[in-house]
Amino acid sequence: MASEWDTHTSLTATGDGLFGAELDPGWVVGGGVNGGYLLGLIGKAIAETVPAKPHPLAVSAYYLSASTPGPAQVSTRVLREGGSVATVAAELGQEGATRITALATYGDLRAMPTDVGTTATEPTIPPIEECVPGTMAPEEVRRIAPLMERFDLRFDPACVGWAMGAPSGNGHIQAWFRMADGHEVDPVGLLMVCDALPPVTFDLGRPGWAPTLELTVHVRAVPAAGWLKVSHRTRNVAGGMFEEDCEVWDSAGRLVAQSRQLAMQPRG
Amino acid sequence: MASEWDTHTSLTATGDGLFGAELDPGWVVGGGVNGGYLLGLIGKAIAETVPAKPHPLAVSAYYLSASTPGPAQVSTRVLREGGSVATVAAELGQEGATRITALATYGDLRAMPTDVGTTATEPTIPPIEECVPGTMAPEEVRRIAPLMERFDLRFDPACVGWAMGAPSGNGHIQAWFRMADGHEVDPVGLLMVCDALPPVTFDLGRPGWAPTLELTVHVRAVPAAGWLKVSHRTRNVAGGMFEEDCEVWDSAGRLVAQSRQLAMQPRG
Repeated sequence: MASEWDTHTSLTATGDGLFGAELDPGWVVGGGVNGGYLLGLIGKAIAETVPAKPHPLAVSAYYLSASTPGPAQVSTRVLREGGSVATVAAELGQEGATRITALATYGDLRAMPTDVGTTATEPTIPPIEECVPGTMAPEEVRRIAPLMERFDLRFDPACVGWAMGAPSGNGHIQAWFRMADGHEVDPVGLLMVCDALPPVTFDLGRPGWAPTLELTVHVRAVPAAGWLKVSHRTRNVAGGMFEEDCEVWDSAGRLVAQSRQLAMQPRG
Repeated sequence: MASEWDTHTSLTATGDGLFGAELDPGWVVGGGVNGGYLLGLIGKAIAETVPAKPHPLAVSAYYLSASTPGPAQVSTRVLREGGSVATVAAELGQEGATRITALATYGDLRAMPTDVGTTATEPTIPPIEECVPGTMAPEEVRRIAPLMERFDLRFDPACVGWAMGAPSGNGHIQAWFRMADGHEVDPVGLLMVCDALPPVTFDLGRPGWAPTLELTVHVRAVPAAGWLKVSHRTRNVAGGMFEEDCEVWDSAGRLVAQSRQLAMQPRG
């Protein structure tokens, strides 16, 4: 059976690197469609464009305008393909307006060397059954964020004070993550996972919408099956903007994705 | 008097977002021209394209092929300009081949809010006079890296064991930085500073060339005059690649730039 993710990101190739897509309303959050979902769609179109290099190594997306549910188009253009990697430019548009423009380098993670010299520390999150499920979010939150129904999220209790009006002030949110339908996340899906959690500014007591200017994801390994650990931090809230770093660790203890975004601080 | 940087990055606008440039041999390092210098050139062309938004906020560059000293062309294309930011696509080419393709969002850092809530910690580097000047590098190193003559670098002694065959193994290099001619670094110049130091893999005992696949820089404030502190770290050397994070702090203790790149590990 197709996963919900595969259904929501299905593309119709119309030739010359052009794809039709239908942005599913299930990915709405606040006034727009989740940027991670859109990046996943773009990522899938790129994978179909360079099938011998099926995995994103690095993807950078610049968000130009908010997307709405409904028809969208993805265009891809191969800038260079040779050796073990391909670099591709891509755009997602709606009604003639570019929503997102992106650059990406793709390769085959299964063909990469197998060395692992990671010195980053795996996030410590309490056992899943001691964490706070996303389904405990108030009805009014879930109504404006149907996005949350796509995931099975279990938040570290130390990082969800914001949900009870008592943010930690650390600028840190972390959670266990899997898809709500139990399907596994593949390397393209990791592009979405890096933008799935609430903005880390929630943990600073600033619950508003934080529009992303730029998001770059590095996918470093094919994730092992099972729960993922997702950790977001900010360390430089300044000048009306903030950076948000995300790490995704798989069930084998491997750092499978690293991302950083630059976003505007929520107003008010 | 014009700074060396301004001379080496001078552009000849030929209309329609096209610029001619001359890649100076003084920026060669090993088999190519330094990627930070090239990014600075691209950054300057973008600033000239959207003069009301003179400062890079985020720039992502994908490196397609190595550049050589001599003539080059930069092309820019405005994707969106409105409100306080502009998003621009740019390419640097030589002899008909694209060397670098980039996306950028520009704005005016002087017009941004003045809040500073940085929680990142300023690097601790011993006083400048206790640090190791780049000019102490062996003659054979300086011959293949004329790039080093552009900077006045003073390395933290704790991070230069690699120069004496005793790398720390921490994956960390930091130094005081200013331009050799004493001219100050502006926001576009910070794009170059983020790729000026030797690859952090030197500190892991792997002194070879580490080709950058992707480099994204966030410029967060106009740097104050004086010495900069530049710190590079890697925490995920795996799968034949590594990420390298850079922070640039100014003399007022402000975190003015953050960058991350994905590079291939040096061979051997």
